[in-house]
Amino acid sequence: MAKSAARLKDIAEKTGFSVNTVSLALRGSSRIPDQTRRQISEAADQLNYLPNQVAKSLVLKETKSIGLILTDITNPVLTAVAQAVELELSERGYLTLFATSNNDPALERKMIESFRARRADGILIFPCNHREIDHIRHLRARNYPVVMLVGDPDSGVDAVCMDEKAGAFKAVSHLIEQGHQKIAMFDGSAERGNRDKLDGYLTALSQANIAFDPSLVVPPALPDVRSGYDAMETLIRRDVGASAVICPTDSLALGGLRYCVRHGIDVPEDMAIFGFDDTEFGEHAVISLSSVNYDIGAVTTLAIDRVIGLINVEGDLPPAVVKQVEPDLVIRESTAPPARR
Amino acid sequence: MAKSAARLKDIAEKTGFSVNTVSLALRGSSRIPDQTRRQISEAADQLNYLPNQVAKSLVLKETKSIGLILTDITNPVLTAVAQAVELELSERGYLTLFATSNNDPALERKMIESFRARRADGILIFPCNHREIDHIRHLRARNYPVVMLVGDPDSGVDAVCMDEKAGAFKAVSHLIEQGHQKIAMFDGSAERGNRDKLDGYLTALSQANIAFDPSLVVPPALPDVRSGYDAMETLIRRDVGASAVICPTDSLALGGLRYCVRHGIDVPEDMAIFGFDDTEFGEHAVISLSSVNYDIGAVTTLAIDRVIGLINVEGDLPPAVVKQVEPDLVIRESTAPPARR
Repeated sequence: MAKSAARLKDIAEKTGFSVNTVSLALRGSSRIPDQTRRQISEAADQLNYLPNQVAKSLVLKETKSIGLILTDITNPVLTAVAQAVELELSERGYLTLFATSNNDPALERKMIESFRARRADGILIFPCNHREIDHIRHLRARNYPVVMLVGDPDSGVDAVCMDEKAGAFKAVSHLIEQGHQKIAMFDGSAERGNRDKLDGYLTALSQANIAFDPSLVVPPALPDVRSGYDAMETLIRRDVGASAVICPTDSLALGGLRYCVRHGIDVPEDMAIFGFDDTEFGEHAVISLSSVNYDIGAVTTLAIDRVIGLINVEGDLPPAVVKQVEPDLVIRESTAPPARR
Repeated sequence: MAKSAARLKDIAEKTGFSVNTVSLALRGSSRIPDQTRRQISEAADQLNYLPNQVAKSLVLKETKSIGLILTDITNPVLTAVAQAVELELSERGYLTLFATSNNDPALERKMIESFRARRADGILIFPCNHREIDHIRHLRARNYPVVMLVGDPDSGVDAVCMDEKAGAFKAVSHLIEQGHQKIAMFDGSAERGNRDKLDGYLTALSQANIAFDPSLVVPPALPDVRSGYDAMETLIRRDVGASAVICPTDSLALGGLRYCVRHGIDVPEDMAIFGFDDTEFGEHAVISLSSVNYDIGAVTTLAIDRVIGLINVEGDLPPAVVKQVEPDLVIRESTAPPARR
């Protein structure tokens, strides 16, 4: 039940001004004297008046709302992006509709349909699986403005994202320059369909003429702290001489760090650990993490520029554009040259 | 620009059925044969048809949307609540509108007005300041359904929250039972207006006949990891013999732990550390944190029950109800009896 709300007529009756004057005053027109405007605005407040955005939406054919779909919120960087998106959309006059797919492709489809049924002007999305995006391609083909926050140049869908391949390449190259040869990777690409970080890892090895050793790759169950602990345990038990590891999230790196500290493995002397996304918990870990940064401000602004740009296109949308933001390395205590033995 | 969407008439023309049949079929009426329904539903999909929720909202006087306002997302437990709220609202047929006030009271007011202008059926809110809620009381007085996710019994506004006073009381009592006498607290109540945790701390001391020593209270700048590190440094430099500390967030506790590990202060032998909210990063810290849990499921379900209950009230709302969920302690490695010296 919507509660009763005042109409312009009620304010006119209360103040003695005409409906037209009330309407102009509430829209801040300079044609209305300041004192009148104040008087009308006070009456509107007392009567609980609010402009009806729902009715306005029917006339304007836009709702000034944009849907944001996250996978889940175990990765702190996703929630930081969500907050940045919401604050920036709000500044630009858009409301944020919010949903998490909880990594469930069926729920992801359902939330997309729900946002469209409510006439969201566009959607920003972290898809569950980076390679299974036919339903998103489908939206785009029907001229619906959608921008992914991950992506690759061949997807046919607009995307703004960190260049994760470049990030992994830089991190692994840094470790190689420090003298590491046996560099492990906690690779979660099989599960989420994102091979970019693995590709960056492989390219860096190949460019340094280091042969790829599959026994150095450990797949974590999830991208979280507990799985990082387990992955480090697996790596150590394999006893393949790894002196460094690159982790696709800071959470995995924190789990790996925990295993090392608790088992007397010195970080960085015996095991250098590189994280991804440069989170608060990584920066302030007991041994602060080296990490690939995530430029939240740049990604947010470019993605919002793009989706609003698409919303304002008349007729068919232009070809999709993928913008990748190149990350920097943040070097802290968890990485150093390997100890001489 | 909203993209062109098919109307019922277009589907009728394409399939040869009447508009009435199409309408019934799309609403899943059992009066329409299965095969006809399938045929119409396929045509609707091809034509990009979607029921217009915006137009429906005008007729039904409800939008089936609920606004969620968070302060900020540095505390992982808030984002976990946000995800749980969104998933449960979605199951119950409501869309989540999302905003963060970024701890800015002016922005909080603006977001509330924005949600009301879009005719959100109700609002769930973590207010910036637990004691400055006149604008929320004002909404409530005008029969607008609003439920706070923090609160005290005398606020006059509905609230569902953790009983933080009971949580702090239990944690401090546990430390006292273990033999601690000089128990410090990183108290952030001055800044955010929430004295509940401090009250629980003081009550536990008083009940055990331990005199309150103000030099054991350190105010952190923010409820984050870095501020926990700084607060621990301040506490140690005061040299007042604290053997334990209770921290109002796990983030503060992690910062305190970091200071101790880096300065050779053994946790828990020389300094027991108790956190709050039982987060992933606390559970899997290098030394796992004892913490006061936050029953996200219970708080979410009760808060959603209440706000939907209020939405369905005809006429004036019933008196406000405050429900407090009593937390349990999770005891891990960061607390133990004080070392004998």
